[in-house]
Amino acid sequence: MASTNLLIAHEYSPAGTQLPLAAVLDGLPWNEDGLIAAIAQQYDSGEVLMLAWMNRTALEETLASGRVCYWSRSRRQLWRKGETSGAVQRLIEARFDCDGDALLLRVAQSGGACHTGRASCFYNRIEGPQVSILDSAPHPAHGA
Amino acid sequence: MASTNLLIAHEYSPAGTQLPLAAVLDGLPWNEDGLIAAIAQQYDSGEVLMLAWMNRTALEETLASGRVCYWSRSRRQLWRKGETSGAVQRLIEARFDCDGDALLLRVAQSGGACHTGRASCFYNRIEGPQVSILDSAPHPAHGA
Repeated sequence: MASTNLLIAHEYSPAGTQLPLAAVLDGLPWNEDGLIAAIAQQYDSGEVLMLAWMNRTALEETLASGRVCYWSRSRRQLWRKGETSGAVQRLIEARFDCDGDALLLRVAQSGGACHTGRASCFYNRIEGPQVSILDSAPHPAHGA
Repeated sequence: MASTNLLIAHEYSPAGTQLPLAAVLDGLPWNEDGLIAAIAQQYDSGEVLMLAWMNRTALEETLASGRVCYWSRSRRQLWRKGETSGAVQRLIEARFDCDGDALLLRVAQSGGACHTGRASCFYNRIEGPQVSILDSAPHPAHGA
């Protein structure tokens, strides 16, 4: 029984419109694994830090605690970012996109967002026929 | 026959390391539909504009043309962003993340990135138990 996707139903509603979060969550187009893509962006510099995934439980925990919790697709469990490494993400703001299949998390990142210790996961730049590594990992084996 | 994921193999290689793009593409962990997630970010302001998907053809066309081309999952065809609306994205820089399942595209966006005409797709902010629409669509039916 699919609920209405309220974000699509209101895509042309004006600024200031408010929708109940629980009903929005009921109607989100969660993927076949029950997940939504989540982009983490450093709130003050604008740097894009990483892309990860959330299920409804992870999103609700994140909103309740103010610390970002993802769903680890490889470990198939909740991934409380920084729980072992200390590289936590404090949630500043969360936004859904127009059709509700992506989240933008504006965060305050402690330490490096990347499991390699780098500030951002996006350190591999395409330069013509090559990919260049832009930053060195600060230490060889850093927990995520 | 899976090729080696060169990005993972080189995740602790130092800044300045160069990898051949074609071999990186051969080893990317394309999802079960042959896609990679692509975040578009306005290159100068840092605003995150949208999240979409690319297959290898879309990525190679984007790199060759300098204009962003996605894969439309709903229409199951290449989606040359702005082809009908004029809201094209000129590619400034493309970066892979640490494990190669996401791309960050730094772009120069013409017009609004969102199919609603808004500058960014991320206009639905979670505010406690509500979701607030932050911007109004500039016109009621804008092509993507």
